[in-house]
Amino acid sequence: METAQEGALVLLISQKGKRFILRISPGKRFETQFGFIKHEDLIGKPFGTEVQTHLGHRFLLLEPSTFDLIQSIPRVTQIIYPKDAGYIILRLNLQPGKRVVEAGTGSGALTMVLAKAVMPSGRVYSYEVRPEMLRLARRTLEMAGVLDYVELKERDIASGFDERDVDALFLDLRTPWEYLAQAKEALKPGGFFGALVPTTNQVVSLLEGLENHGFVDVEVEELFLRPYKAVPERLRPDDRMVAHTGYLIFARKAEVAGKEWFSFRIGRAWRFQREELDEEING
Amino acid sequence: METAQEGALVLLISQKGKRFILRISPGKRFETQFGFIKHEDLIGKPFGTEVQTHLGHRFLLLEPSTFDLIQSIPRVTQIIYPKDAGYIILRLNLQPGKRVVEAGTGSGALTMVLAKAVMPSGRVYSYEVRPEMLRLARRTLEMAGVLDYVELKERDIASGFDERDVDALFLDLRTPWEYLAQAKEALKPGGFFGALVPTTNQVVSLLEGLENHGFVDVEVEELFLRPYKAVPERLRPDDRMVAHTGYLIFARKAEVAGKEWFSFRIGRAWRFQREELDEEING
Amino acid sequence: METAQEGALVLLISQKGKRFILRISPGKRFETQFGFIKHEDLIGKPFGTEVQTHLGHRFLLLEPSTFDLIQSIPRVTQIIYPKDAGYIILRLNLQPGKRVVEAGTGSGALTMVLAKAVMPSGRVYSYEVRPEMLRLARRTLEMAGVLDYVELKERDIASGFDERDVDALFLDLRTPWEYLAQAKEALKPGGFFGALVPTTNQVVSLLEGLENHGFVDVEVEELFLRPYKAVPERLRPDDRMVAHTGYLIFARKAEVAGKEWFSFRIGRAWRFQREELDEEING
Amino acid sequence: METAQEGALVLLISQKGKRFILRISPGKRFETQFGFIKHEDLIGKPFGTEVQTHLGHRFLLLEPSTFDLIQSIPRVTQIIYPKDAGYIILRLNLQPGKRVVEAGTGSGALTMVLAKAVMPSGRVYSYEVRPEMLRLARRTLEMAGVLDYVELKERDIASGFDERDVDALFLDLRTPWEYLAQAKEALKPGGFFGALVPTTNQVVSLLEGLENHGFVDVEVEELFLRPYKAVPERLRPDDRMVAHTGYLIFARKAEVAGKEWFSFRIGRAWRFQREELDEEING
Repeated sequence: METAQEGALVLLISQKGKRFILRISPGKRFETQFGFIKHEDLIGKPFGTEVQTHLGHRFLLLEPSTFDLIQSIPRVTQIIYPKDAGYIILRLNLQPGKRVVEAGTGSGALTMVLAKAVMPSGRVYSYEVRPEMLRLARRTLEMAGVLDYVELKERDIASGFDERDVDALFLDLRTPWEYLAQAKEALKPGGFFGALVPTTNQVVSLLEGLENHGFVDVEVEELFLRPYKAVPERLRPDDRMVAHTGYLIFARKAEVAGKEWFSFRIGRAWRFQREELDEEING
Repeated sequence: METAQEGALVLLISQKGKRFILRISPGKRFETQFGFIKHEDLIGKPFGTEVQTHLGHRFLLLEPSTFDLIQSIPRVTQIIYPKDAGYIILRLNLQPGKRVVEAGTGSGALTMVLAKAVMPSGRVYSYEVRPEMLRLARRTLEMAGVLDYVELKERDIASGFDERDVDALFLDLRTPWEYLAQAKEALKPGGFFGALVPTTNQVVSLLEGLENHGFVDVEVEELFLRPYKAVPERLRPDDRMVAHTGYLIFARKAEVAGKEWFSFRIGRAWRFQREELDEEING
Repeated sequence: METAQEGALVLLISQKGKRFILRISPGKRFETQFGFIKHEDLIGKPFGTEVQTHLGHRFLLLEPSTFDLIQSIPRVTQIIYPKDAGYIILRLNLQPGKRVVEAGTGSGALTMVLAKAVMPSGRVYSYEVRPEMLRLARRTLEMAGVLDYVELKERDIASGFDERDVDALFLDLRTPWEYLAQAKEALKPGGFFGALVPTTNQVVSLLEGLENHGFVDVEVEELFLRPYKAVPERLRPDDRMVAHTGYLIFARKAEVAGKEWFSFRIGRAWRFQREELDEEING
Repeated sequence: METAQEGALVLLISQKGKRFILRISPGKRFETQFGFIKHEDLIGKPFGTEVQTHLGHRFLLLEPSTFDLIQSIPRVTQIIYPKDAGYIILRLNLQPGKRVVEAGTGSGALTMVLAKAVMPSGRVYSYEVRPEMLRLARRTLEMAGVLDYVELKERDIASGFDERDVDALFLDLRTPWEYLAQAKEALKPGGFFGALVPTTNQVVSLLEGLENHGFVDVEVEELFLRPYKAVPERLRPDDRMVAHTGYLIFARKAEVAGKEWFSFRIGRAWRFQREELDEEING
């Protein structure tokens, strides 16, 4: 896609850096305090160029990214941050064709990223008890063009998931340790489990639960994103940053007795494990 | 995939946490200092269970993830870290069907992640001047089963890329600012540009180059990964962590005069941009 | 000091956490939107107890700390953060009796901390070209009761410092690399040099200057402070944090040829140096 | 002190960056694998110059700092990091003349820093139950020349502290929450309390204890130190850093009912408090 097309999403950025996402609908106007732009006037305009309001104020025209779409979701709930979403995709080993369960759906930000990772042949099964959140999520997924790859389910997961032998499962809710039996039932042998919780107390409860349910290869991690001011002659970090979005917990489903496989990070250097790997692969 | 199959990759973890990746080849033996396991004895074994050497030492059997494969690549060159790779996928707006150029290929770690993001209908075009690195990368991609989605090219990119109108382009080499004209020629209008460099001096040079070539919406960012010891009764961060993998620089190709669209993070709070977005989408 | 006394500084914290520092002056009133407190009514009140306005609104009465005083300085200029100030004291090897030069004085926040470290027998010599900043600094130092230990000088340091053989010298100004000859002239042999600059470009220029002027044992460091929400049942980091206050550069004055002593952190593990030290001291 | 003197501590740095601290004792030799230096040959040598072994290997001669002394303490126990020590001094509001209690003494690293902050007129009262640690601490304090300002006590603090109305008290032990009644008894009204613990579980227990004992203005904080490679043409962070030294908890002793003064960081922006302060001081 090299030019703006009817029916497509476009991103307009003001000279002050304000970002607007809209779907081009002939007959509609993009109204700003600095004048308007008729949607049809955008059709055929190449991305990466300037467009003007009827009062001559300029905007930058771009194709919106998944990143932009995440940012654009109304803040009615805590949403996933892109730094965490990208890492979750890797940690859950997602790729086209995989089947993944998510609960809760929330605003659909992570659902969208999961869908883009497993489409077109894979599926996301996303559970949510709050109907108003499901409506918002549906709108997000429609906007992103990935609704076909997602099954949204208005359901309390206490009664279990419908799916079996899914490749991965992610819990983004307040008490993930209460649903580990259900998670285990839905996951395939060796399947990938992940969760995001904001407090250390929740991490502790989840770790206890994962230990009791025989999960293995458990990791607890945090990601920090530090933005810089992009000024070549005065390169420096921004003054403020997000200090915390949540603790990420990852594990694998297993059928083992004892707790010896629970976590491999304790008391040993991770790099030695990698060196061993290297030898094996080189050998 | 729920059990180990002939010809498939499996991950074996020792009781001390050492990780081994192997392809099941009947007739071969997995040799360890604690005895061996015949490959054929692994066939049909469910993932997430224990297997034993002929001396009774136990290993945990799992399906290896992309994450494990990245870790397993020999350290002959600086490889991408998963935390950065996942974020790059989102920032470059990759999803199945997209076409992305990468230079240099290096050991193929990022190439593998790019391929898993754009397959099956998309393509990765990856350039590298060092034939020995290309050989290593080819082996990595074969192992990961994604070689079909990648075109490896032994070529100096100073003479330009073969592709035109690609969706995204990533430079992971020492002097990315020397190839911005070539990058711009290959990218579609509004296309996504990314780069990774280790020093602040390189960031400065790259920012100057991006400004001169009219790139817009430039961001400089760093990701930190902080691992924790997964012990519920004594939850705490690890003693040591990786302090630096590289600075990530992202931008969009544009055809604009002036530098007003160069970067939007200077002197304004990012969240105001998001609130504006919210209004637009809610409105 | 266990109770509030006439002429002393006190800290009053509102129920909403707003902090007020005042000097008890009988006849004056502490006015708030929730009523007033007569200063004389505070006299003799023990710290760590509540006091009330005439309308019954409660405030917590405490002795203000140096930390509180730093926070209380008007934001007319970039002030030092306590995390950096405490570390600078250690890195400059300050203790009672030491003589330290500082430029520029700024609002006097660091000057105050330096004075508290070297008093009563040591001295701070603080240079500043802006008379309005010197006035503010004088007020800060008077309030903190440390003006006797500081010599404030309204002077451009391009013409050099008056002092010789000082124990330490700290530059908190835009172009510290322009004053390294002057710094070296003022420092004693082996004396401690420090500087704070916000951008990586400034760090690069300062490092070049330090190399050219024969400084040794150079370190570049950053400190991050991550605050937590102090809620035992929901312990978690704050949502936002300060991402950057400045890069700290430390060095020692030396008279050596060549650059081999410039920095010892390159390419070697710091801990080996420490193990060596341990042996020496144990031996 | 501008030259090395008999009986004084000196720091010798090898060309490989190894650091040695020794006390100049005529008749002794500093032995290295590259030859020896007679102690008396160092006397009168200016700091910041090179000295040579009898085989011509060069060392850099410097005055050791408190920072160097902390690093030189044998690693028989977890020692305080300078980044934390400097911040603790500020948070506990220490300066010459203050009286501070510490438990446990450990290797004496923090004791040394506390002593340098409150000397010559102040005192450190340091409690430790392990006689072998007290011996090590005594040696550290003697080496640093601050033993006169410290009272070392071999005592279990369960039975309480001897001191009353101390300005500040710091607990660096495994279960600080068990000694809060004793801490409160020793502190003056409004006195400064601090503690360092490595795990989140300990932070939770300590916060509960502080709440129950009526402490106020509680803060939980962490400091990260990020070192850089000091190479002007390739400025970049070190590859690895210390990820965790401990959580710092600070509070003030108070006599108040209710928990409204417990912590002021919850749900409000800290900067508003500061702006309020500014107004007060400007007004």
